[in-house]
Amino acid sequence: MPDPRETGLALDPKYDASGLITAVATDRTTGEVLMLAHMNAEALRLTVETKEAHFWSRSRGALWKKGETSGHVLHVADIRIDCDQDAVWLIVDPAGPACHTGERSCFYRRIAGDRLVPAE
Amino acid sequence: MPDPRETGLALDPKYDASGLITAVATDRTTGEVLMLAHMNAEALRLTVETKEAHFWSRSRGALWKKGETSGHVLHVADIRIDCDQDAVWLIVDPAGPACHTGERSCFYRRIAGDRLVPAE
Repeated sequence: MPDPRETGLALDPKYDASGLITAVATDRTTGEVLMLAHMNAEALRLTVETKEAHFWSRSRGALWKKGETSGHVLHVADIRIDCDQDAVWLIVDPAGPACHTGERSCFYRRIAGDRLVPAE
Repeated sequence: MPDPRETGLALDPKYDASGLITAVATDRTTGEVLMLAHMNAEALRLTVETKEAHFWSRSRGALWKKGETSGHVLHVADIRIDCDQDAVWLIVDPAGPACHTGERSCFYRRIAGDRLVPAE
């Protein structure tokens, strides 16, 4: 039987045991994956309402607006949700580097066999 | 002190308590996010070695080669890893729809307020 969570148009996020879903952000212009993080229900609600990315920090155990201290806000142009509603895709215009290391994207290294190399 | 996991060129994935990292696959041509799934160490190793995406199915508790029954393999052109090495980004050429629903991407719905709408 078809699963209404997969086929329907009701927003019904499938939070995990910790109350979280996964969120991936890509750059609207370049298509580059910028970062991957997690959201609880409040982070998702705030992201939808304010069109600025909010996450849940698992290490700090706190709600977190991306860029609240750095100014490197992610302006959200579009939000998609996947088939089983346990992941969202944010299409964003970043106000600065997305990574806390200062790199544009957190994915700044390529896996080459059993080593890493700079991605560019 | 700089964390060598973040700044170095040693592959040192940070698996979670279940032995998994998150993997996101994007289409090399369109930039579209196709799917999000999880990998254990063996899935990552097989993906790197064969250049075809392998995952760990949390629901089935089994290693899973994407497309092993459907034929909709994801051919991996590039693999990136993020700053804290708990997520990988696969840049792929898909042999068919990535979603089990038959959609090209699992992210076929947009969040519009408290509802979903078809993404295209």
